Amino acid sequence: MTQDTFPSKLLENAVTEFAKLPGIGKKTALRLVLHLLKQEKEEVHRFSSSITRLRDEIRHCKICRNISDTEVCNICSNNSRDHATICVVENIRDVMSIENTQQYHGVFHVLGGIISPMDGIGPADLEVDSLIKRVIEGDVKEIILALSTTMEGDSTNFYIFKKLKDSGVKVSMLARGVSIGDELEYIDEVTLGRSLINRQLFEQSLGQ
Amino acid sequence: MTQDTFPSKLLENAVTEFAKLPGIGKKTALRLVLHLLKQEKEEVHRFSSSITRLRDEIRHCKICRNISDTEVCNICSNNSRDHATICVVENIRDVMSIENTQQYHGVFHVLGGIISPMDGIGPADLEVDSLIKRVIEGDVKEIILALSTTMEGDSTNFYIFKKLKDSGVKVSMLARGVSIGDELEYIDEVTLGRSLINRQLFEQSLGQ
Repeated sequence: MTQDTFPSKLLENAVTEFAKLPGIGKKTALRLVLHLLKQEKEEVHRFSSSITRLRDEIRHCKICRNISDTEVCNICSNNSRDHATICVVENIRDVMSIENTQQYHGVFHVLGGIISPMDGIGPADLEVDSLIKRVIEGDVKEIILALSTTMEGDSTNFYIFKKLKDSGVKVSMLARGVSIGDELEYIDEVTLGRSLINRQLFEQSLGQ
Repeated sequence: MTQDTFPSKLLENAVTEFAKLPGIGKKTALRLVLHLLKQEKEEVHRFSSSITRLRDEIRHCKICRNISDTEVCNICSNNSRDHATICVVENIRDVMSIENTQQYHGVFHVLGGIISPMDGIGPADLEVDSLIKRVIEGDVKEIILALSTTMEGDSTNFYIFKKLKDSGVKVSMLARGVSIGDELEYIDEVTLGRSLINRQLFEQSLGQ
């Protein structure tokens, strides 16, 4: 699509802005923009102010670094949760995924990424120091590492483990094994091998 | 995804607004919103103001009803174009598609839809009267109907044709036939039948 086919500079600007979003090409951007153009003005204003307000007013919880509307997030300020267990995740989406399982009642710590020398991200770029500080200063019993099962995730796990191993805090990580619903023939060898080594007692699996 | 898993009302609002866009589900909306959250404030403001400005400031060309930043659009105000030939299209996107072919040098008329009794859209809801007026009052030689090849498109074509048949203006429509690149075995029978009836001289096709 060449530039000069746009009948309007305003339209072109809006399409260009939309096309900057991940996974949105020029054609989709045009479709979305023309959809918005057909909506009532108030509707469109509500759309754009929801974005600017989010960007301008959002805060990060001073305890766990999750995004929050308040200084301390809902989870950290919830007294019925187990504040002695901290689940370490990469980003906000992971917090939401774990919350959706409804299996976790502890609190979180959002690193804001994982150690990735290829992308120039080291421990100093992440919320690792604040995690260590939180563990040392607080009454923490267990750290659950819930990072991606990639090389970068593993390096980050190991880095945090090393930093905490003398603190007396239990460091655990998510169970690795066969996904629920997986057919055996499609599972990669590493996962299958690991899940053989870490096999569980059948009675134990019934209890979960 | 249940409501209470959102760590922030602001985030939830933005995701809800994004998820109203066609083809954008809750998961994609979240991904887009978190992407915007990572951008600079100015970048996000540029994004949202491009949308609101478009909605607030856009106009429709008083001649062809295409969207435009000015009272008369670029195409209608371009003297090097053939103002005696009007191509009738359903919407703005069709204008852009035809402009992209670089094969058309006349002007346009944007109906804003097609006649569709199922959706309660009649001729009065479309820019049909303004088209007839334009043809009768102006120095128009040919009307090219470039609507969808659906039943609704055909009804609209026929409606316009009937209105114009006594005006002395030539009414043509887009050629219907086999698409360039189509394999014969996959073409539907109606298209194939029509393209047999309307077969062209081979020498003629070379000239195109």
